Amino acid sequence: MKEKKQPSEAAIINLLKLKFDSIGDDAAILPLTKTRSYVLTKDLLIEDIHFTVNQDAATLARKALEVNLSVLAAMGATPHSVLLGISLPSHYFDYINSFLTNFVWACKDHNITLIGGDTSRSSDKFFISMTTIGTILNKNIKYRHTAENGDLLYVAGCLGDAHIGLIASKNNKGLTRFARKYYSPKAKLAEGAWLGKQKAVTAMMDLSDGLYIHLKKICQSANLAAFVNLDGFSTSPEFKRACKYLQLDRITTQLIGGEDYGLLFSVQANKGPIIAKMFYKKFGYELQYIGKLGHGKGVQFIKNRKPIHLDLKPFTHFSESE
Amino acid sequence: MKEKKQPSEAAIINLLKLKFDSIGDDAAILPLTKTRSYVLTKDLLIEDIHFTVNQDAATLARKALEVNLSVLAAMGATPHSVLLGISLPSHYFDYINSFLTNFVWACKDHNITLIGGDTSRSSDKFFISMTTIGTILNKNIKYRHTAENGDLLYVAGCLGDAHIGLIASKNNKGLTRFARKYYSPKAKLAEGAWLGKQKAVTAMMDLSDGLYIHLKKICQSANLAAFVNLDGFSTSPEFKRACKYLQLDRITTQLIGGEDYGLLFSVQANKGPIIAKMFYKKFGYELQYIGKLGHGKGVQFIKNRKPIHLDLKPFTHFSESE
Repeated sequence: MKEKKQPSEAAIINLLKLKFDSIGDDAAILPLTKTRSYVLTKDLLIEDIHFTVNQDAATLARKALEVNLSVLAAMGATPHSVLLGISLPSHYFDYINSFLTNFVWACKDHNITLIGGDTSRSSDKFFISMTTIGTILNKNIKYRHTAENGDLLYVAGCLGDAHIGLIASKNNKGLTRFARKYYSPKAKLAEGAWLGKQKAVTAMMDLSDGLYIHLKKICQSANLAAFVNLDGFSTSPEFKRACKYLQLDRITTQLIGGEDYGLLFSVQANKGPIIAKMFYKKFGYELQYIGKLGHGKGVQFIKNRKPIHLDLKPFTHFSESE
Repeated sequence: MKEKKQPSEAAIINLLKLKFDSIGDDAAILPLTKTRSYVLTKDLLIEDIHFTVNQDAATLARKALEVNLSVLAAMGATPHSVLLGISLPSHYFDYINSFLTNFVWACKDHNITLIGGDTSRSSDKFFISMTTIGTILNKNIKYRHTAENGDLLYVAGCLGDAHIGLIASKNNKGLTRFARKYYSPKAKLAEGAWLGKQKAVTAMMDLSDGLYIHLKKICQSANLAAFVNLDGFSTSPEFKRACKYLQLDRITTQLIGGEDYGLLFSVQANKGPIIAKMFYKKFGYELQYIGKLGHGKGVQFIKNRKPIHLDLKPFTHFSESE
């Protein structure tokens, strides 16, 4: 008997791509003027997959918005407005009341207008579907496929902190500083807008699903390989202690831990150091150097200057390795 | 003990409106040029609320798109592109494969580009979230609140046919012509675009939730009453027979039956007959005259030239009367 193939998120997107060549990045582009465009995200948050309603509604509302804004950040866009769809069982009124009130506050904090939405009953789960809309100068839009051979890879933000926070929180192990990273991420909008303006930055994504998955996506889109230098990964003593405490492998956590919402981007090789220096001066924290792009396929790891094989099983939404 | 209040869709939208004054119509407007705008819809379709997966995936894919395009039609807009979010249990691969293939075909038929999307696992239900994007000349945009005192109300399309189809289909009672109306609605894009261009048309909505609910919405937005002339409702012998066969009240079915996806609109009183005549000439079928708008509140019914009271309990997504 033929075994039934289960779908991966990638398989479904590929299924769509086969027919449509306009999909490739996490956000969609709508022309606005000759020099400007709208950027649109589409993001689903599903109860018991992406969150539980044990989670405080106020925190969830803010996270739902930040997660979407993070995609705008990764394109280099400035937030403009939002469409909100919610579907919920009828006994959730208090929860949704708090969710909406806080969503409204979060929008105000970002100077975003809620321009439309839809509400519907669901039989048992709370579904959130959001489209955030940003604006950008066309020349500043960052895609994935535009990364080039020889470019250097950097990350703005932490790697693995949110994953530590999730695991700690699930197991009631404290580590609130990390838990906060998971429950209350902040979209790197200022960094995204600044990086968008840098011509030397050739491609950019946000780190929603973990570094490894996003590196694979950039490689696939740009038809290149990523050579990841694990020796250069910076790790704070606090992160090391947390990994030990939770019995997590440090490198694996940094590579596959999701929901950090930092920015992964590629820079023309000769401009890497100056971009890193300017970034530090502007934002007060160091970029993390990840490695570089070269000819080949997929993500390759280097430790002690030698290639090593890592057996990484990243989390995907369909819970299968790709 | 205080009884727990259940939320209505209207209550949630009102909760949002309290904070945001930009929401009021089913579609959102994004400025494009001085004379043109984008129009964006946001629609959720939830398994076991709006459809079941017993339903053929091809038909569902087309319906999901048409339902969203119907909102564009009601603003007077021309379809441009679409964002598709789907969330599904992992054993639905064959279903989603057929859904996506047919969705792609449906988009091609309408000359629409799929510009982005999101996929995610869900624990047990299939969830579709769609944003269709259209373009329109600003001067042709039709809102709800712009209806005026004395305007005449018309419907382009059938009333109650889809409801008959749903009830017949649920009870295995045949009536395939009506069932087709429910499962395979067509957005009235050509009619919407033409009506959008008519200055005498003062407000427009699409009939997704039944005539009565939409009349209430127009009344609320325009701060007027609707005087509905039940004597004028046209009914085919076939519709009468179907109502009798299914033991449904004819007038109630026409007033609260949902999912017809016709267009409800208001016309300046002196222009009503000429619009109706031009419409017939262009589209080959008659507009239905519903009644007129006047001072007052809510929807009032007239039969044999006398006001009558009807106890209508329209279907809402939260299954409560408003």
